[in-house]
Amino acid sequence: MNESVPRSIVVPGYTGRAARVPAGALLTITDLEGCQIGDLFVLAAADPTEVLSPAVTRLVNFTPFPRRGECFYSNRRRALLTLVEDASPGPHDMTFAPCDREIYRDLGAGDDHPNCRDNFHRAIAELGLHPASAPDPINVFQNTPIAADGSYTIGVTRTRPGDWLRLRSECDLVIVLTACAVDIPFAGVQPNGGRSTPLRLDIG
Amino acid sequence: MNESVPRSIVVPGYTGRAARVPAGALLTITDLEGCQIGDLFVLAAADPTEVLSPAVTRLVNFTPFPRRGECFYSNRRRALLTLVEDASPGPHDMTFAPCDREIYRDLGAGDDHPNCRDNFHRAIAELGLHPASAPDPINVFQNTPIAADGSYTIGVTRTRPGDWLRLRSECDLVIVLTACAVDIPFAGVQPNGGRSTPLRLDIG
Repeated sequence: MNESVPRSIVVPGYTGRAARVPAGALLTITDLEGCQIGDLFVLAAADPTEVLSPAVTRLVNFTPFPRRGECFYSNRRRALLTLVEDASPGPHDMTFAPCDREIYRDLGAGDDHPNCRDNFHRAIAELGLHPASAPDPINVFQNTPIAADGSYTIGVTRTRPGDWLRLRSECDLVIVLTACAVDIPFAGVQPNGGRSTPLRLDIG
Repeated sequence: MNESVPRSIVVPGYTGRAARVPAGALLTITDLEGCQIGDLFVLAAADPTEVLSPAVTRLVNFTPFPRRGECFYSNRRRALLTLVEDASPGPHDMTFAPCDREIYRDLGAGDDHPNCRDNFHRAIAELGLHPASAPDPINVFQNTPIAADGSYTIGVTRTRPGDWLRLRSECDLVIVLTACAVDIPFAGVQPNGGRSTPLRLDIG
């Protein structure tokens, strides 16, 4: 794998890509065609059992959705990433696990639908890493607001083509970005507009 | 350790206790004095890197707070526990990581305040287990509703003395229950009423 900085990686729809990212790099995630969720999985390069923890991040920031200037913390309470700029309508979900084989089976799409959990494992294996389970992602651009009665809702993703989000790595990381595979109605909504489309990851 | 079933374990305030629990057991958590949060950490006995995942549980159940009859799922999408009865006002938080040393330091309580993260590690070490990080707990009886504007709030815990919650183990488990150590105002609220008091864990 090319680990040079800067570099640009296109993540095709329905797939994932992994990258090693040095401390201090800027990561820019761009939604190339619009209306596309990206699941961003973040692990510490020094020990991939240290992973980004939305639950620890919520405890520290006390906000359901990340905002500019906030850090994302690991399951060992270390800052891994900072959200430095958001040129998208957001929000960015930190509530839900990645889509998985069982979700699609339960929705009637059979046993073999592409899904972000399997795509995480497949992508990170390209770096020679084989974690036993996927950490909780930041679901970039995923529009899952909380209703006034406290219940969860799923909205259509609000990004337009070219919208982007920028983060800074606070230590050496391994990241995986998947282009969310949802292309069938989920709770009556097509969050990705009916198909999975590419994202671009720039590391500089 | 006594691993007989049934057994009853008192978890003193400011501490944690670990237990091995066979599949099919009923776990009853009782708030002995009222107004006390318990952090329940759940790991698979066969492989303690398989842990209860609130994020996967939310994906499956699509509810912010667990309800009777719902399962709690692992980070490998396996049902670990079922909520079978709730004789408490609830709710039971699944949003936040356990309190930790840094939270108390940031609140001005010094570097050595008892906390659920350290208590998890201390308790599970009694079983000879040394996980590198604490999994996300179910914060039993923790009253952290979501406001109408989608923001998080902390309320005083609503349990009365003797209120309880009952769960069923769906496979062999290792669990840790901590009596949450918060005894100073947190966002202006005393969630545990100003001190940490005992919980009882019955396994039968």
